[in-house]
Amino acid sequence: MARRATTDGKAGTRGGGRTVTSYDVAQRAGVSQSAVSRCFTTGTSVSPQTRERIMKAAAALGYQPNAIARSLTTKRSNLVAVVVANLGFNPELTATLSRLFASRDLNLLLFTLDHEEDADRVVNQLWQYRVDGVLSATHLPRGHIEQLAKRRVPVVFLNRVYDDIAVNSVCCDQVEGERWLVDRLWAAGHRRFAIVSGPDSSLVSRQRVSGARDRIAALGGDEPAVAIGDFTYDGGRAAMRALAAEARRPDAVICANDMMAIGCIDEIRLEMKLKVPKDMSVVGFDGAAPGRWGSYALTSVRQPVDVMIEAAIDMLTARVDNPAMATEKRVFSGELQIGVSARLG
Amino acid sequence: MARRATTDGKAGTRGGGRTVTSYDVAQRAGVSQSAVSRCFTTGTSVSPQTRERIMKAAAALGYQPNAIARSLTTKRSNLVAVVVANLGFNPELTATLSRLFASRDLNLLLFTLDHEEDADRVVNQLWQYRVDGVLSATHLPRGHIEQLAKRRVPVVFLNRVYDDIAVNSVCCDQVEGERWLVDRLWAAGHRRFAIVSGPDSSLVSRQRVSGARDRIAALGGDEPAVAIGDFTYDGGRAAMRALAAEARRPDAVICANDMMAIGCIDEIRLEMKLKVPKDMSVVGFDGAAPGRWGSYALTSVRQPVDVMIEAAIDMLTARVDNPAMATEKRVFSGELQIGVSARLG
Repeated sequence: MARRATTDGKAGTRGGGRTVTSYDVAQRAGVSQSAVSRCFTTGTSVSPQTRERIMKAAAALGYQPNAIARSLTTKRSNLVAVVVANLGFNPELTATLSRLFASRDLNLLLFTLDHEEDADRVVNQLWQYRVDGVLSATHLPRGHIEQLAKRRVPVVFLNRVYDDIAVNSVCCDQVEGERWLVDRLWAAGHRRFAIVSGPDSSLVSRQRVSGARDRIAALGGDEPAVAIGDFTYDGGRAAMRALAAEARRPDAVICANDMMAIGCIDEIRLEMKLKVPKDMSVVGFDGAAPGRWGSYALTSVRQPVDVMIEAAIDMLTARVDNPAMATEKRVFSGELQIGVSARLG
Repeated sequence: MARRATTDGKAGTRGGGRTVTSYDVAQRAGVSQSAVSRCFTTGTSVSPQTRERIMKAAAALGYQPNAIARSLTTKRSNLVAVVVANLGFNPELTATLSRLFASRDLNLLLFTLDHEEDADRVVNQLWQYRVDGVLSATHLPRGHIEQLAKRRVPVVFLNRVYDDIAVNSVCCDQVEGERWLVDRLWAAGHRRFAIVSGPDSSLVSRQRVSGARDRIAALGGDEPAVAIGDFTYDGGRAAMRALAAEARRPDAVICANDMMAIGCIDEIRLEMKLKVPKDMSVVGFDGAAPGRWGSYALTSVRQPVDVMIEAAIDMLTARVDNPAMATEKRVFSGELQIGVSARLG
């Protein structure tokens, strides 16, 4: 590339090619080079008059400070790595993250993981770009979490917790949400429950499934049949086909996320030729946009995604400023989303 | 943050805090510092034996080269900025981009734009992170495109072209796709066409709408009614409500994307109490996943997203290596996706 940076780490490029440095700006503005430097560094100050002179000179010369070079001295890159799983990729999450990051002047380095082995590659990149922190909406291998801790790169998990190591996390209360759903289904008279789980490797799925199962047991219900899905529409359809083949047809199907619930509804209507919720109730979890479409009008638990992401960013930036800050978990309640896919009591 | 980088721009951090430099690695491996440097720089070489010694020493010390510092000397950051619109955000696009970037060892700095004014902020960040290039799936203001060109940051647009300036672009042939749809609808006997467009500001929408309209005119059909949507499900429903209020009920509704087509189908079924496609045919454009769900089984034109993104990355990396390379447009044909939402001839 033709762009150049000077060793002082503050550089722009003129149309002609020569690099504009903070020295050039200082000369033109008639101020010291260190004033120019302070003017472009968060948390330092120059007088309003000086700032105005500097900004005018910078604009005239096309000067831009170099964030990457600056990160070498300030130890802040304003880059946050976001790690999401490709499977069960939540588009609304990514869009919300990007919007809220922008409002905080943070930039988003996006990584998607197909397999756990990819975590090696991703974590290597994290070192290389000196990210300020990591926000992970997927499971990371324990060894990597320990490495990040050792190198004092704060990590906040979204909806992921670990049984045996302490990590910062922001979660939706999965168990509470499932309890609400089961209680309302039970009150409406459902007794033949079935569950469509996510993959075994997903902790969120395990929490939601055991939340539902434990509540059914507490109410004195029979052990529900469980079919394993993969968080996708097609996975939901396949799981529903498996449940339909069971001797005892369920009257309520509890799905570990909305996409699978949508798949179940289509399978029930299009293949089993039954009505939802007259013949069978279906509930999901997440509050995904397609679940609110007229054809589905899914009964579900809406996660407060905006609030959760704001909290995660707060948690992360607090630890960028103070890496010694204690590990913290924040758990938010979801909100019951009443659609027409389930008879509720 | 506690991490430090040395002036040679190659640094890791030990658990204890002291920075591990390429010098430490060279000492331990018994090689020169420049050999360590070459070992971690693409396009340079060391002997396999030397590489093995260096990699062992680096692993033992926890050394990681610093990509950001290196970018100051190599002029390559391996960072590509991806700019997408928040409205009409295409999740599959972002997931595909991230996957294909990873396979090329490129990292993705994601920006979403709500409004055109946000482009200022985004373009400022591009300078700061010394991105190798920009891949934009949304419109950027002309002045910004010119600035990027002046600074020799290559830009490739996805499905965006400009009438009056030359830009690198990878597009799906919108006009051809609409012609296919209109021809097949016409052959099945449809004569009362209606169009649901995207926002006026969207060039993709304008191309698709004029593609459909021109073909209808060429076949001798009446001028279709047009309702303006916003690329979303709700926008599609509102547009369909507007079309339903017209004196002459359409028999075929051509939508500028799949999300709006899905909204139209729900409005036709749930509010107008009509059958799709018996009473009304609906077609979309994109090949989005929900369009293939059983409840919709949308007839549409599938864009070859993977091929288009591969092409865009090729185009971008070629221009990172050679900024003087001529501007280029690549146009790919879509593929007719035959669902059950339209009667086709």
